Amino acid sequence: MAGSDEVKLLGWWPSPFVMRPRIAFNLKSIPYDYLDEKFRAKSDLLLKSNPVHKKVPVLLHHGRPVCESLFILQYIDETWTSPPSILPSDPYERAVLRFWAACIDEELLFWIGTIVKARSAEAKVEALDKTKVGLKRIEDLFKDFSKGEKFFGGVRIGYLDIVVGSYLGWVKMAETITKVKLLDKEKMPGLVGWVERFCAHKAVKDVMPETDKLIEFAEKMLSKPRSNPCEIEKD
Amino acid sequence: MAGSDEVKLLGWWPSPFVMRPRIAFNLKSIPYDYLDEKFRAKSDLLLKSNPVHKKVPVLLHHGRPVCESLFILQYIDETWTSPPSILPSDPYERAVLRFWAACIDEELLFWIGTIVKARSAEAKVEALDKTKVGLKRIEDLFKDFSKGEKFFGGVRIGYLDIVVGSYLGWVKMAETITKVKLLDKEKMPGLVGWVERFCAHKAVKDVMPETDKLIEFAEKMLSKPRSNPCEIEKD
Repeated sequence: MAGSDEVKLLGWWPSPFVMRPRIAFNLKSIPYDYLDEKFRAKSDLLLKSNPVHKKVPVLLHHGRPVCESLFILQYIDETWTSPPSILPSDPYERAVLRFWAACIDEELLFWIGTIVKARSAEAKVEALDKTKVGLKRIEDLFKDFSKGEKFFGGVRIGYLDIVVGSYLGWVKMAETITKVKLLDKEKMPGLVGWVERFCAHKAVKDVMPETDKLIEFAEKMLSKPRSNPCEIEKD
Repeated sequence: MAGSDEVKLLGWWPSPFVMRPRIAFNLKSIPYDYLDEKFRAKSDLLLKSNPVHKKVPVLLHHGRPVCESLFILQYIDETWTSPPSILPSDPYERAVLRFWAACIDEELLFWIGTIVKARSAEAKVEALDKTKVGLKRIEDLFKDFSKGEKFFGGVRIGYLDIVVGSYLGWVKMAETITKVKLLDKEKMPGLVGWVERFCAHKAVKDVMPETDKLIEFAEKMLSKPRSNPCEIEKD
């Protein structure tokens, strides 16, 4: 196991993507130093470590940077190989999980972000509808992947749990802001049960941002536009 | 080694992404059946195999579909583990390659596609300039990764060779159409040397589309807009 002095994570607390390596580290009991970026003030370390995208999360392992949350998750799993595994060992299962993780990132971030940022009622309604469609598909995926167990990963949290779960803070914030139920127990019984189990998990509960705090952040962001949940812009 | 009856690749000859698994199969001497889609006429097998994106390439291995070219490359490498390897075994090197492959796909496809499709001279010039900047960065990457050897992968073709190399047909087409040199021997000596070696490689030369044929295709595509190099739209 690595000592905390050699594993640093550059993050930003509202980012869904930053939660991902934090959950993986918790699951694998890997100590790490967490450095939180400030609102619209990118640190020199971040700019130096991820000069292409200038985005968090960045994992620094022995000073070497690994960027992009999905690649960081795979790096953690390939580097600290002791259980629990985040990805399965079967190449086909891995390929399918990589595909769905990319799909979810493509769609969900955009629509949840739009719910929060949309200025017109029309745009907000469209984003809410699209998010519901996306969540319904994730409900179907949950049935396929969990096979009656507790998590997408089966008996334990795996890759898709972390990918989907990282959006839950934002989903709850969007529900509170709009007063529209997105995670509907009638339509998504599997997913709603999973949300409770996932959020209560000891590897998750301390890194899941509080809804009130996220709302406060969203208000601040909207009052000074030019940011999105995966990017920190320098003022 | 798999028999050709159990490995099928759904492709489309102008697609850069379809070349990728074909090169990997050639490198690893894996026989496969290649099924080429028709212009704007998605086959039922494609629609059934990739219902989310409806895009090629799709690998069917024992009837099970694997989608998205970068995930297919990783699947091939993890399934047919005999040499040559496409990705290195070191987790850090793998993470860095995944990062750069994603960056290249994000930028290069868009700008090269824009060179071909742009209607105004201004948009074409911008796209040419952006492509040159992208290729200059790839020249720097080549220096870093090849370490004086022949390929991005060192002494043999690896992940980044396949990713970058898959765009060469389109780069050459863009050069011919615009009469602008994109791969400049003065500014990109490493890359230009690599292009020659890569295109002459026995795993590549038979799957690299001919420039004249690509130009003919681009003219057809532009005369009936609504397509892009990574997507086949159904009429």
